[in-house]
Amino acid sequence: MRLGVCYYPEHWPEAMWKEDAARMRALGIKQVRIAEFAWSRIEPSPGEFDWGWLDRAIDTLGAEGLEVVMCTPTATPPKWLIDRHPDILPVGADGRTRAFGSRRHYDFSSPSYFEASKAICEAVASRYGRHPAVAYWQTDNEYGCHQTVVSYSAAALTRFREWLKERYGNIDALNRAWGTVFWSMEYRGFHEIDAPIGTVTEAHPSHRLDYRRFASDEVARYNRMQTDIIRKHSPGRPIAHNFMQLFTEFDHYKVADDLDVASWDSYPLGALEEQWYEPEVKAKYLRTGHPDFASFNHDLYRGMSKLPFWVMEQQPGPVNWAKWNPAPLPGMVRLWSWEAFAHGAGCVSYFRWRQAPFAQEQMHAGLNTPDNRLDIGGSEAERVAQELRALADAGADADVDGRVDTPVALVFDYEAKWLFEVQPQGVDFHYPRFAVEYYSALRALGFDVDIVPPHASLDGYKLIVVPPLPIVSDDLVRKLSNTRAHIVVGPRTGSKTADLQIPANLPPGPLASLMPMRVWRVESMRPNVNPRVTFSGSVPQGYARHWRDLLDVGTGSGSHESMQIRAVFADGHPAYVKYGAVHYLSSLFDEASTQALFARIAAEAGLAPAPLGDTVRTSRRGGLTWVFNYGSRAHSLPADIPGDAFVIGSHDVEPQGVAAYRTSSKKTP
Amino acid sequence: MRLGVCYYPEHWPEAMWKEDAARMRALGIKQVRIAEFAWSRIEPSPGEFDWGWLDRAIDTLGAEGLEVVMCTPTATPPKWLIDRHPDILPVGADGRTRAFGSRRHYDFSSPSYFEASKAICEAVASRYGRHPAVAYWQTDNEYGCHQTVVSYSAAALTRFREWLKERYGNIDALNRAWGTVFWSMEYRGFHEIDAPIGTVTEAHPSHRLDYRRFASDEVARYNRMQTDIIRKHSPGRPIAHNFMQLFTEFDHYKVADDLDVASWDSYPLGALEEQWYEPEVKAKYLRTGHPDFASFNHDLYRGMSKLPFWVMEQQPGPVNWAKWNPAPLPGMVRLWSWEAFAHGAGCVSYFRWRQAPFAQEQMHAGLNTPDNRLDIGGSEAERVAQELRALADAGADADVDGRVDTPVALVFDYEAKWLFEVQPQGVDFHYPRFAVEYYSALRALGFDVDIVPPHASLDGYKLIVVPPLPIVSDDLVRKLSNTRAHIVVGPRTGSKTADLQIPANLPPGPLASLMPMRVWRVESMRPNVNPRVTFSGSVPQGYARHWRDLLDVGTGSGSHESMQIRAVFADGHPAYVKYGAVHYLSSLFDEASTQALFARIAAEAGLAPAPLGDTVRTSRRGGLTWVFNYGSRAHSLPADIPGDAFVIGSHDVEPQGVAAYRTSSKKTP
Amino acid sequence: MRLGVCYYPEHWPEAMWKEDAARMRALGIKQVRIAEFAWSRIEPSPGEFDWGWLDRAIDTLGAEGLEVVMCTPTATPPKWLIDRHPDILPVGADGRTRAFGSRRHYDFSSPSYFEASKAICEAVASRYGRHPAVAYWQTDNEYGCHQTVVSYSAAALTRFREWLKERYGNIDALNRAWGTVFWSMEYRGFHEIDAPIGTVTEAHPSHRLDYRRFASDEVARYNRMQTDIIRKHSPGRPIAHNFMQLFTEFDHYKVADDLDVASWDSYPLGALEEQWYEPEVKAKYLRTGHPDFASFNHDLYRGMSKLPFWVMEQQPGPVNWAKWNPAPLPGMVRLWSWEAFAHGAGCVSYFRWRQAPFAQEQMHAGLNTPDNRLDIGGSEAERVAQELRALADAGADADVDGRVDTPVALVFDYEAKWLFEVQPQGVDFHYPRFAVEYYSALRALGFDVDIVPPHASLDGYKLIVVPPLPIVSDDLVRKLSNTRAHIVVGPRTGSKTADLQIPANLPPGPLASLMPMRVWRVESMRPNVNPRVTFSGSVPQGYARHWRDLLDVGTGSGSHESMQIRAVFADGHPAYVKYGAVHYLSSLFDEASTQALFARIAAEAGLAPAPLGDTVRTSRRGGLTWVFNYGSRAHSLPADIPGDAFVIGSHDVEPQGVAAYRTSSKKTP
Repeated sequence: MRLGVCYYPEHWPEAMWKEDAARMRALGIKQVRIAEFAWSRIEPSPGEFDWGWLDRAIDTLGAEGLEVVMCTPTATPPKWLIDRHPDILPVGADGRTRAFGSRRHYDFSSPSYFEASKAICEAVASRYGRHPAVAYWQTDNEYGCHQTVVSYSAAALTRFREWLKERYGNIDALNRAWGTVFWSMEYRGFHEIDAPIGTVTEAHPSHRLDYRRFASDEVARYNRMQTDIIRKHSPGRPIAHNFMQLFTEFDHYKVADDLDVASWDSYPLGALEEQWYEPEVKAKYLRTGHPDFASFNHDLYRGMSKLPFWVMEQQPGPVNWAKWNPAPLPGMVRLWSWEAFAHGAGCVSYFRWRQAPFAQEQMHAGLNTPDNRLDIGGSEAERVAQELRALADAGADADVDGRVDTPVALVFDYEAKWLFEVQPQGVDFHYPRFAVEYYSALRALGFDVDIVPPHASLDGYKLIVVPPLPIVSDDLVRKLSNTRAHIVVGPRTGSKTADLQIPANLPPGPLASLMPMRVWRVESMRPNVNPRVTFSGSVPQGYARHWRDLLDVGTGSGSHESMQIRAVFADGHPAYVKYGAVHYLSSLFDEASTQALFARIAAEAGLAPAPLGDTVRTSRRGGLTWVFNYGSRAHSLPADIPGDAFVIGSHDVEPQGVAAYRTSSKKTP
Repeated sequence: MRLGVCYYPEHWPEAMWKEDAARMRALGIKQVRIAEFAWSRIEPSPGEFDWGWLDRAIDTLGAEGLEVVMCTPTATPPKWLIDRHPDILPVGADGRTRAFGSRRHYDFSSPSYFEASKAICEAVASRYGRHPAVAYWQTDNEYGCHQTVVSYSAAALTRFREWLKERYGNIDALNRAWGTVFWSMEYRGFHEIDAPIGTVTEAHPSHRLDYRRFASDEVARYNRMQTDIIRKHSPGRPIAHNFMQLFTEFDHYKVADDLDVASWDSYPLGALEEQWYEPEVKAKYLRTGHPDFASFNHDLYRGMSKLPFWVMEQQPGPVNWAKWNPAPLPGMVRLWSWEAFAHGAGCVSYFRWRQAPFAQEQMHAGLNTPDNRLDIGGSEAERVAQELRALADAGADADVDGRVDTPVALVFDYEAKWLFEVQPQGVDFHYPRFAVEYYSALRALGFDVDIVPPHASLDGYKLIVVPPLPIVSDDLVRKLSNTRAHIVVGPRTGSKTADLQIPANLPPGPLASLMPMRVWRVESMRPNVNPRVTFSGSVPQGYARHWRDLLDVGTGSGSHESMQIRAVFADGHPAYVKYGAVHYLSSLFDEASTQALFARIAAEAGLAPAPLGDTVRTSRRGGLTWVFNYGSRAHSLPADIPGDAFVIGSHDVEPQGVAAYRTSSKKTP
Repeated sequence: MRLGVCYYPEHWPEAMWKEDAARMRALGIKQVRIAEFAWSRIEPSPGEFDWGWLDRAIDTLGAEGLEVVMCTPTATPPKWLIDRHPDILPVGADGRTRAFGSRRHYDFSSPSYFEASKAICEAVASRYGRHPAVAYWQTDNEYGCHQTVVSYSAAALTRFREWLKERYGNIDALNRAWGTVFWSMEYRGFHEIDAPIGTVTEAHPSHRLDYRRFASDEVARYNRMQTDIIRKHSPGRPIAHNFMQLFTEFDHYKVADDLDVASWDSYPLGALEEQWYEPEVKAKYLRTGHPDFASFNHDLYRGMSKLPFWVMEQQPGPVNWAKWNPAPLPGMVRLWSWEAFAHGAGCVSYFRWRQAPFAQEQMHAGLNTPDNRLDIGGSEAERVAQELRALADAGADADVDGRVDTPVALVFDYEAKWLFEVQPQGVDFHYPRFAVEYYSALRALGFDVDIVPPHASLDGYKLIVVPPLPIVSDDLVRKLSNTRAHIVVGPRTGSKTADLQIPANLPPGPLASLMPMRVWRVESMRPNVNPRVTFSGSVPQGYARHWRDLLDVGTGSGSHESMQIRAVFADGHPAYVKYGAVHYLSSLFDEASTQALFARIAAEAGLAPAPLGDTVRTSRRGGLTWVFNYGSRAHSLPADIPGDAFVIGSHDVEPQGVAAYRTSSKKTP
């Protein structure tokens, strides 16, 4: 566990570098990420490299014992390169070519850019691959930021056609898979296929989904080109990429396959404002962020990282890019930092060392203000560093660096997001909302959660939660059939084949082998329609939102005698049914109901829910338990925790406070 | 009266066809529409026709005694045709050419497409024109769906200039008619005129209106080309087109002039969600549709159809294309079917036989689910078929097939819609809202209504209702002068000349000869401004919405002694005036007030209002009276209806229920 | 003080002109603006001029003793000119070239249009420059209307690069000033720089601000070309331009530098609907306009006009161009007219003489209806004319024509508007809202206000109010340092350097010399977050909106002993601080709080607030005091005003009424 920072020597007079490095070390910073936007300084004109300044910057950092995370600068191709190869620029769904002047202005399918990227990666990696101060690498920066994955350029179309040919082999297979007969959309060859945009009404959904899959694959291909080059020149140095929180245009799992470290950029306040939350929720968590958003991402990236995941960029104060940009409450930068560690992070790296006084992000706070005074985020980072040292001194280091071990898995899938964007059926059907609300219910019950892809092993879990997963593979069916865990399945699961068709046996398709039923009809619901739901057992009456699967559970024949209808809508349709250990939710319920029914299911799965309310969260890693208080009132921990068990804080956890204590039985060595 | 269905043999294995046809017949289906999207199967490559499958499909249906509605497949030109003639594609107001990949991707003005359409129509009509199973024809599919009437292509511009030359003769006449002097917009020749888009601020309104008229005329011209070809090859078979509900981009009356059957596609739930209703109204009628929307369309298309109108596509369950897509309540598919018959329909044809598991409409229900089980809509269709047979057995057939005979006419005009779109003056001035709210008031009072164009004969009506009709022809003035009916006129009527100028005598222009007054000023009003209105007589105080005409009714001179001011705004301006039998409404009142004043006017016209509330509706056709219950409570009919008069249902009409009883005095033989 | 009207002889039969002119004179009209849209009639074909009609029109007006305001017709280049030089058309941020067909369809940077404009200005000015009836000139019409200042044409880019070269000298200076190093956006030459649009995410803010500055300068350059030509041909005739109310795309001060008369077009109802006000405010002032909107503009243009400013176009009734277009209450046209005079206007000119029955503005009222009867606005104009005559008869003329003399200045800056649009940091941060709310508070306290640019002299004021002014010049700092006035400074003042960077000492940058503090952090706030603010003194508790500057006022060191914290947020941060005579507001408070604290500050500045409530306003000019009643209840003036002091009205000012009385001590001779 260590702290890092993002630093831009090229933005500051060289005279400041030495003191910056010394202050970083003094603050407790261990690693420094650099150069991800520095292409125009590294190669100011075509083929003319200026390594001097970068050599000196790295040496300066290294001299203070700081470990450098070296970046490839491909997120910002310079103007001269664009002018030489205008085909680098991506093309929007509006048919307009994007312009130079900000960042990420490149098309993943551009052959010119692929070659130019290779060249600059070779140059940087060969120069610094074995530099003693360079300990890690980062490829590019925030793939997918600013909706830059899907491009509609000629280059993309060419590669899409190849991708289709690869997938389907021949055009008849594609026509069958898509069902192009529907509106005389049949193709006579792959060359006839265009990008699925600009149509009079909705373009073909299978066409659209394949375009999204293709675009995602292009990112993975591009990243792999970079990791191959880096590994060649810099053996043994772990390679990371910094993913953005729920920027789901590409499959993060696939990119992570080629990395050593899955890192992510955590901006809890910006995310709250820009995500799907209602205005009242945005006001409630205005200066803390939602208690389950950062941790959702921690648990997601932990799962896809070979080494402990990192927070590559941690919000240190107000940002500049959300619709509104409030300041975090005092204590939150510390809380967020510890929360990341508690969820398994290996490093929390703040963005950025010092607020830049110019350009697009001049209103984005840093650890230091532009006049080079330590900002409040900087002070809190310093406190975290001190606490880390104290932990080490107290011998709790090993505990802390332990594993996160949890009996609950939640399946999260990028393709599901694309599919539901292509075919929402109700305009506000938002896949992450389902995943995060299920996650939130689990977290509010005190559980640690692994977030995993459908292809992950599901061994060892007691509870497996599957938010709407339209395409269910045979592999997943097999794993779910073999598990002894309780399984919670959200609506629309198994509702599509891999080709985006309705399964021949209707939804839940292959899952019918686990749960003998049939979704004979569905409906999407406008926000001002929320049907009442009556639950059996101790769950109070609640209501449904967004969606209803209408289930045919064979009540008549008696063949499914073990099918329990555990909740019904007012019109008699089942809202929640249980068959063996499989629980099927036919809608998204209100949050209180969701939590109550997860509590019941968890208990059935042999787990002990410990309800925490909406603003306190707990996490366990190695031999320690952490408590985080997102709320505005102090939270008291049970008196039976021995006072000397605390390594951070105490029984009384103040608002925005953190506590950590040794758990009696260590789970990991 | 018979049932039909829409069927797509090309979407299903040939092995299923025979059983499908047999099941249709067994269910009570009499006619089957096919092939409107089958071009790519009929002509898979340029000039290479594959008739075999279609021959066999028609034969299979014919063998079961089903009557085929054969379609021209022009709504979906195949990819090879687009690639050969890219000028077929329409161009949007954004200047972008629309792409292949869905449907209706053609420009009505494209010469290439006109020729290609001729060729495919010739091919289909000549092959099947005299086929014994082919009983009817449908041209194309849903003209105007997806806003595809108005195109801004070069071809459209060329034809627009010709259209203008035809209309105005010489450029000076156009300059005068439009008033191009206003902002130095004068043209020196027709060649200088462009499409009215892309201007810095609003383009010239007369220019815009003429472009809309032109675009509408292009649809009629295109359709006439098809009907000419079909009539040549298939003499005696009635020709239909399936209009879409209030898709008003073209003049349905003009297209219907070339048809035998005006049919329409009825999607009550999709329409509710997509039309102008407030969110609370959308929630209230979520699973029934608005009680007056389908019937408004029935009454509209009845009037323009030479043979009894049809519902060519009847919603059978949830659809896929509205923002949200709820399921109809059980009983609604039956109710909608009977409602269509009660309003004079000759056929109700369900869309579609079986839900397709692929492509854009895979989430659109059919009579059967994709796994080929009868869906609830199918069961209800079956019940309607049984009831139709029972009716025939009971000898009520002739009653039922009788005429709809009504003393009330409501004038509905497509050009009015375009004009108010071009010049709304208040951003939410929505012409159909006025027409439908007037209609709704009349229906809530128990009246049957004919919806007619301004050029219709108005003979025989006792009450004529004219929602805002900006351009009033001399012909209409003459007819209104000669009628003995009471006439209700909405605001903005007579407010424009045919050239979209203000009449020299100010509004109501030529109507001033019926009603001596002058609209000296108007104002549009934001939604949160609703001036109070005080009515004379028994009409309670209400409020105005959207608009006020300020009337100069010459109160001073005493020359208009018979002018009654029957309602005033709080600031003293007249809100509703009566002169002789002409009633002028200067605003749109709240719905309760509108209903109350229509009740008063109807009584003055010698009619007997029978208030029904908001969720029960009645209709009369031939010797029968129908009752439809859209509400959630049972509705009891008067005890003085003899029990044996009922041919469907009884005195107690359940929610979503239907009753029909013989009326003592038959109106038609 | 005189009345005028806008007249379009080319829109009406020549036979009407004589009577029109006679009726104008009879009504009391003194000046008539003509010909600003008449290019196609003056030059119907290239180089072929038709002067006859215009000669006769001017002669007809002159014969009635009316003074003509002659216009250059450049706001509406005719079609033949556009067809010859398509590069005249501007290009939108969407990359699309705007089309002919409305008005203002030209690019200020187009060399073709610059030359064509020169030619038509030469032609018109040389023909009428010395015509005895031509007393004044107007250049073009409403620069900036319909967002026509900023164009993205190739011509604009060429000139932008030149403009940049002029500003920065060399590319290194630009790179430094902008901070292009940030995302490798460095340029190697001016030729590499594009327009700041179409980027993947936000374009560089300094780049964007410079583009806005450039576009504004182009307007001034274009206007100067016209004034140079007019002055050459028409010596001694004052030149005006008619600015549009808060159309802030260009710097009105700079254009006014080349004019004699700054006039503006006053549409209080249209403005209310189209500006930022909340729906409830729009409903409240629906038919009066906001009491402080027209006067804000009067006070703004008064300051930049060498001769007394004019209202060139006064709304006479409903307009056509707002989202909704209500009618003014009876009396408002008179009230608006007197309000203009009270604020220093030399002329109020109504738009237009008669409502045109055709083209885009056919729904825009005039003094006469299209059927040529005097409309209510016309009657009210007639009454104003009579009152003006009575005033002259009563010898109050000299009083009235006196100066407006006020001890309060409010600084308003166009560049600030652009900068906050480029970098709002909170999506609804709206600079004019701050300026107008501060102004409104001052007006509600009974003060007359000068609205001045930052470069104005600030001598003689007792109170200087500076709404958010991001770039503070050394000149302004000097003036504020030297004044004895109290100074009120809004948030974000001094927050940027001229290059749009954060000042090295943090905000308030150079103002720190007046007010020793440091804005160490800021936050923008969503509309549903309004932190409580507790004020010291008699100001009741209120709340903050939109923004918070977090201030470091050095409370610890004691070095700023005279820094008073006069309001705090609930979290302890200062909300309002005072240092000497400088008052710094760190947020925008609710309107009641703003008014209360301005009352307190004004008293400290030696002024006597006279609270008027929200719907009564007073103004002083020369020896007279006016009272305007925007409300719905009569307003009684103090009994100690002698009855014989009234020159208009009396002690009881009816709703929409006006009163004016001689003030005991005249301020100007």
